[in-house]
Amino acid sequence: MAVQTAGNTTNPGTTNATTVDLGPAAALSCRECGHRVPLGPLFACQECFGPLEIAYDFSAYETEELRKLIESGPANIWRYAPLLPVPADVAGKPNLNPGWTALVKADNLARELGVTGGLYVKDDSGNPTHSFKDRVVAQALEAARAFGFTTLSCSSTGNLAGAVGAAAARAGFRSCVFIPHDLEQGKVVMAAVYGGELVGIEGNYDDVNRFCSELIGDPAGEGWGFVNVNLRPYYAEGSKTLAYEICEQLGWKLPDQIVVPIASGSQLTKIDKGLQELIKLGLVEDKPYKIFGAQAEGCSPVSVAYKAGHDVVRPQKPDTIAKSLAIGNPADGPYVLDIARRTGGAVEDVTDEQIVEAIKLLARTEGIFAETAGGVTVGVTRKLIENGALDPTLTTVVLNTGDGLKTLDAVAGTGLTATIRPSLDSFREAGLV
Amino acid sequence: MAVQTAGNTTNPGTTNATTVDLGPAAALSCRECGHRVPLGPLFACQECFGPLEIAYDFSAYETEELRKLIESGPANIWRYAPLLPVPADVAGKPNLNPGWTALVKADNLARELGVTGGLYVKDDSGNPTHSFKDRVVAQALEAARAFGFTTLSCSSTGNLAGAVGAAAARAGFRSCVFIPHDLEQGKVVMAAVYGGELVGIEGNYDDVNRFCSELIGDPAGEGWGFVNVNLRPYYAEGSKTLAYEICEQLGWKLPDQIVVPIASGSQLTKIDKGLQELIKLGLVEDKPYKIFGAQAEGCSPVSVAYKAGHDVVRPQKPDTIAKSLAIGNPADGPYVLDIARRTGGAVEDVTDEQIVEAIKLLARTEGIFAETAGGVTVGVTRKLIENGALDPTLTTVVLNTGDGLKTLDAVAGTGLTATIRPSLDSFREAGLV
Repeated sequence: MAVQTAGNTTNPGTTNATTVDLGPAAALSCRECGHRVPLGPLFACQECFGPLEIAYDFSAYETEELRKLIESGPANIWRYAPLLPVPADVAGKPNLNPGWTALVKADNLARELGVTGGLYVKDDSGNPTHSFKDRVVAQALEAARAFGFTTLSCSSTGNLAGAVGAAAARAGFRSCVFIPHDLEQGKVVMAAVYGGELVGIEGNYDDVNRFCSELIGDPAGEGWGFVNVNLRPYYAEGSKTLAYEICEQLGWKLPDQIVVPIASGSQLTKIDKGLQELIKLGLVEDKPYKIFGAQAEGCSPVSVAYKAGHDVVRPQKPDTIAKSLAIGNPADGPYVLDIARRTGGAVEDVTDEQIVEAIKLLARTEGIFAETAGGVTVGVTRKLIENGALDPTLTTVVLNTGDGLKTLDAVAGTGLTATIRPSLDSFREAGLV
Repeated sequence: MAVQTAGNTTNPGTTNATTVDLGPAAALSCRECGHRVPLGPLFACQECFGPLEIAYDFSAYETEELRKLIESGPANIWRYAPLLPVPADVAGKPNLNPGWTALVKADNLARELGVTGGLYVKDDSGNPTHSFKDRVVAQALEAARAFGFTTLSCSSTGNLAGAVGAAAARAGFRSCVFIPHDLEQGKVVMAAVYGGELVGIEGNYDDVNRFCSELIGDPAGEGWGFVNVNLRPYYAEGSKTLAYEICEQLGWKLPDQIVVPIASGSQLTKIDKGLQELIKLGLVEDKPYKIFGAQAEGCSPVSVAYKAGHDVVRPQKPDTIAKSLAIGNPADGPYVLDIARRTGGAVEDVTDEQIVEAIKLLARTEGIFAETAGGVTVGVTRKLIENGALDPTLTTVVLNTGDGLKTLDAVAGTGLTATIRPSLDSFREAGLV
């Protein structure tokens, strides 16, 4: 099938760092030792092997000037371009333009859970490929453009494959996505339809990841931007936009409590980073907030460590229906533990049965059909209220990061309430009136 | 399972018409004979059995005042509340708040199709339940509230069932949706997850429809709002918002050409109505536009009539993968023929094979995964360009009314481009670099 190749045609990987325009992004900085290097397709510190993240220069705008700029921006993540590692003219480039998804005031759910302080669901199923992954891939795409890459790649077991395939198609990049060869046919179709290369690897997700790391170091991978490997520092920043949107949609206010799913833990750490930035920039009032992490019991390494009082996370072999959260060795686990403890939050987990119940609860009360990850956050919210860790009198935001249409199997038991003949007599007999 | 009942508790069906506040909606008016009756849950003229539609009083605002009001409104269909049969405070009521979906500048698709005048895809897969049905159900819901109904109902084979179930859940209505008993399990799950009553009828879609008409006239159906039957005049108006959004997103300009799918034909006629309203209100410049209708060959009664030069539509027995368009006896067929001819458009159809090709084309070029109905409009656009009916030098808007995740079977043949062992050697052998 025809795959378009387009974009910057300079020799990939040789772009001079000083010519890279990624807006307020000033450098890469090691989260562990603080060592700074110029912006480039790097993800690990050369000094201490710690994770690199973006260091910004936000001095270009005064607070109220920045607020006005954001409020007059497009109804997508690019309204926050001044706070992201992207060029100022990003909104004019071909991109899926995700974000600015609904923050739903969930009054029916609040009644069921006993929340009186205001309950909101941040519903990221409204993104172009119906998961929050569109936010992070959009950042990685701009970095790939800046570094002269022409192929967008990733390892994935689902949502990310579709997000990368779609974004590459829109932007005129070649895409090559690696997945375990025995993935469910439905998920293969969702990723393959965008027409990029979709390669099945004989092995499990760990084998796929290992292969991708090899490929980055090989000439065969030259010119390739792996969104969640060599572009990870840029990619990860996309999750900050969840924090920005929630606060702006609350009228430039911090929520009191926020419940976030944990896969690698990156999303939770970046939401915290985003909230901190808004405070420092004066866009919201500085006040305490609590961040809660949510896992499935069948993949709960961070929750287990939190409850045991540990600082390190012991890897698990995942076994849960919440496949999009099934990372047994979460890279950002220790940072998540730190944030949950520092903010007065917690990390909790729920069983697969509780996940399914929570998916149905959210659908029945608010008309939102969440994927299993959304069942995890709603289920954990309920559990945190029951065990007293979450205060129901405070403003609470629960994240739904994906769409129920992608994990239909989880609620496959749901069905007809009655079957009748096409007659009023038969209808009356069914006892529905 | 628990179903909430809430809302107006006045005796259903007895609401005094003079107390109904549905904003600018002034009366119901017969499309055929012009006979006017007060607003109520009626759909057929008592004089001539013609279809009733909403008559408006738009005199409340000056043009520029109205434009400002719209532009400062919410990022959903309620920005157009002054032009819809809803109360002015509708945005504050519990509702799924659909609309304001992306109008995607489809430059890659334009290149493939040879369109030089600007090609746009109006992507309604971004709605809450991922189809345009959320727009029409949202109107019906407000009418149901106004008339004191407490149960929301419909006959459906797919998208509408989910849209009604979700909207009822959010708004605290009971829902009872009727579907053929042998619907595919996936579609049943998508509709059942919202927790309302989902009743399978032993028979085909025609039997389901016939049963619903019986139920409306029976005491058992008292207090029930059937969105696509006794609330149809209100429901249908939701499609006008597609016209409003397209024009506003083009900078308050009419497109030159617009390609719309045909099921009952209602959507196309209401898009025309919406464009005419914008002209009359002075919100856009009065200039010619052409409306094209798109059908699947396996259900092409309007296309066949158009090509034969007939004014009436001869019913067909549908046989196509485009199930959401498979209405063999489209109620608004004659009006569609009239509009296509009056505006200088056309009605065309494509085969199932062309539908699948078009789905893949749209995904590969723009990263938009459409349901079969979107394959129909994109495929028809291509055919209309090839046969000279559509002018590629003019601004053209193509509608995608639903999401590919709901019709995965259509592209089930899509799959892995290669399967390899997790080694660089195996990767090189696959010939992907």
